[in-house]
Amino acid sequence: MVNVAILGFGTVGSGVAELLTKNGAHIDEKVETPVRLKYILDVRDFPDSPFGNKIVHDFSVIEKDPELDIVVETIGGTSVALDFTTRALCAGKSVVSSNKELVATHGYELIQLAAQEGVSYLFEASVGGGIPILRPLSQCLAANELTEICGILNGTTNYILTRMIHAGLSFDAALAEAQANGYAEKDPTADIEGQDSCRKICILGAIAFGRHIYPDQVPTEGITHVTLADVAYADSCGKKIKLLGRAIRQPDGRVCAYVAPHLLDAANPLAGVEDVFNAITVKGDAIGDVMFYGRGAGKLPTASAVVADVMDAARHIRSRKRMEWGPGGDDVTQSPDGLVCPWYVRARGTADGAHAAFGDVSCLARAGAPCEEVAFLTPPMTRAALNEAMGTLTPETVLRVLV
Amino acid sequence: MVNVAILGFGTVGSGVAELLTKNGAHIDEKVETPVRLKYILDVRDFPDSPFGNKIVHDFSVIEKDPELDIVVETIGGTSVALDFTTRALCAGKSVVSSNKELVATHGYELIQLAAQEGVSYLFEASVGGGIPILRPLSQCLAANELTEICGILNGTTNYILTRMIHAGLSFDAALAEAQANGYAEKDPTADIEGQDSCRKICILGAIAFGRHIYPDQVPTEGITHVTLADVAYADSCGKKIKLLGRAIRQPDGRVCAYVAPHLLDAANPLAGVEDVFNAITVKGDAIGDVMFYGRGAGKLPTASAVVADVMDAARHIRSRKRMEWGPGGDDVTQSPDGLVCPWYVRARGTADGAHAAFGDVSCLARAGAPCEEVAFLTPPMTRAALNEAMGTLTPETVLRVLV
Repeated sequence: MVNVAILGFGTVGSGVAELLTKNGAHIDEKVETPVRLKYILDVRDFPDSPFGNKIVHDFSVIEKDPELDIVVETIGGTSVALDFTTRALCAGKSVVSSNKELVATHGYELIQLAAQEGVSYLFEASVGGGIPILRPLSQCLAANELTEICGILNGTTNYILTRMIHAGLSFDAALAEAQANGYAEKDPTADIEGQDSCRKICILGAIAFGRHIYPDQVPTEGITHVTLADVAYADSCGKKIKLLGRAIRQPDGRVCAYVAPHLLDAANPLAGVEDVFNAITVKGDAIGDVMFYGRGAGKLPTASAVVADVMDAARHIRSRKRMEWGPGGDDVTQSPDGLVCPWYVRARGTADGAHAAFGDVSCLARAGAPCEEVAFLTPPMTRAALNEAMGTLTPETVLRVLV
Repeated sequence: MVNVAILGFGTVGSGVAELLTKNGAHIDEKVETPVRLKYILDVRDFPDSPFGNKIVHDFSVIEKDPELDIVVETIGGTSVALDFTTRALCAGKSVVSSNKELVATHGYELIQLAAQEGVSYLFEASVGGGIPILRPLSQCLAANELTEICGILNGTTNYILTRMIHAGLSFDAALAEAQANGYAEKDPTADIEGQDSCRKICILGAIAFGRHIYPDQVPTEGITHVTLADVAYADSCGKKIKLLGRAIRQPDGRVCAYVAPHLLDAANPLAGVEDVFNAITVKGDAIGDVMFYGRGAGKLPTASAVVADVMDAARHIRSRKRMEWGPGGDDVTQSPDGLVCPWYVRARGTADGAHAAFGDVSCLARAGAPCEEVAFLTPPMTRAALNEAMGTLTPETVLRVLV
């Protein structure tokens, strides 16, 4: 018998409770011991929920129960979640988390603590919702020297961009629709400004390259400045705009990690990832490119990843940690400013101005473009070279082109 | 120290030797003990190879070496490979295999034997080349009741179909090109007749649904009868032709498994999988659809999966098996004849004949169609109902439409 407590009875927490119950027989058979939901910690009561009788309000009930083996943390944030995770690990309980902010910010110390206490700290659900990615990355691709991770890591922004591309909605209209459909929060900042993607690329980069990467080491740009004009210009040259999180291993071993919208060729498998779906491509020296695709968020997909971790922890009660990486530091990352790529530029200016600045570039066309607007793709160059070359042009949107 | 022997120094075997050497430092660090290639078994000598000094010709050298821990079987087929695998497991050695034919035919008994001997029998490389699929299926998606596996499982046929679709090559010309590029064997039968896909869907189905599925329980149709006319008609209705292996859990718990070319909507993520790439979609009750994409064959991608298994076996020397399923039997599978779906029909006959037979179907058009040819998509029906309805039409190509 393995006893589980869920911290936080919100969307993910209630999904975990539902899945543990619905697929209970199947789960017990796979784990080869009964997995029982014993407590749900929340500040609220849920008298009408079938799980109402499991609600507790005091974390110390869970912390002090010697029969309690696994704590599922779905609280989010880094204050209470950090406190409870630390206390649970110190009390000899394995912890399973869907909290990307906590893992991206305090993952290294929590992994160390779990190792020291001889328990597991698992967080497959923190990246890509239900898509299996962290375990394949650390186990199945272990024979590779990995060189790059690149992914569409946020469903909300991908939904907004998809609606801008296919339905011609403005950013604001697409955001409002996403909120109406429950795909975006009332305060969508963390999604649309790229912070959610940033946390996820930190975790992916740490697993792939072996050192903790902190969110403040990752330059992050969201999609709020992407306009329908940009979508139209991208379409005119067979490309789509997607928000990507990237972590690229440099020859000196440092990791160039950043989040920004990019133009992608329509033939790139990531370009076909629509709506709230996520996809993560991994490049390795032996494997070439592999891609993992699926629902990056949502109650049951995320719960699916959490419960798989619970099952794994249940099979390895009091055994060693499964995911690990080294400490962070100033020597881990490198600015993307040195990264050479073609750029998409939409600017106030003229075709002559574009040619004077960037040579023989082809100007892009869109219906209804004002006459003082010019858009084009540059040759490969660094951002500094781009800024320097701009000449008479006043840039309005500047986006990297993925090659 | 963990000692490894490779059986068979062909494409995959030499890739494994290369990868173990090239990424040796990285591998040793991850496994936390040195992983050493000790023997390579082959009937030939390789005096010019850097691995020439590891060649042995007598399996009993490997079998009787008490220091030898892991045997990598890349021989292929089911005769010598079965004998050596059985003897290796009986001698207390873990076995890692890329041999889909052996796993699909004798997987259940070999898994049982490995369990009995307390060693591992791992075969991630047998499906999808380097794409991590078996471990994610059995571990990361373990919280789900899985309902369907559907995949492009063979790179050779996908290359041929891609060239027919995009370059307008006939089947024969595309096959010849695939052979010239090293993507198809001199005797391409196992690929183009679907047997390779069949073996892979057997393994995927066994892991997903828990019982051994034998290749002779899986109706298998290749792509040799697919013509450019079919490709053109599919294109005219926004679809692509892909060879799919499918395993679908039926309400009674049986598995409907088969291999056949299908028409897929261009928006389906599988439709965008081109050239020698493979992709596998998995449906689960919590996760919805997830897809795994990458190079399904080739020396280093396949070696990547083999070496990941070697690393996993090395970390769990003399521990329990990791993949498992129950015995096969007549009660495991169900014929796809009962499966209801729309059909693509290209027939000798007329539009009137098509309407008389199938009601208000829209006839498809292609340039240069002879006047006695008609093509259309039927409403959803079983194969028996389709055959019965055919009326005055003489079918030339009949393909399922994936919905």
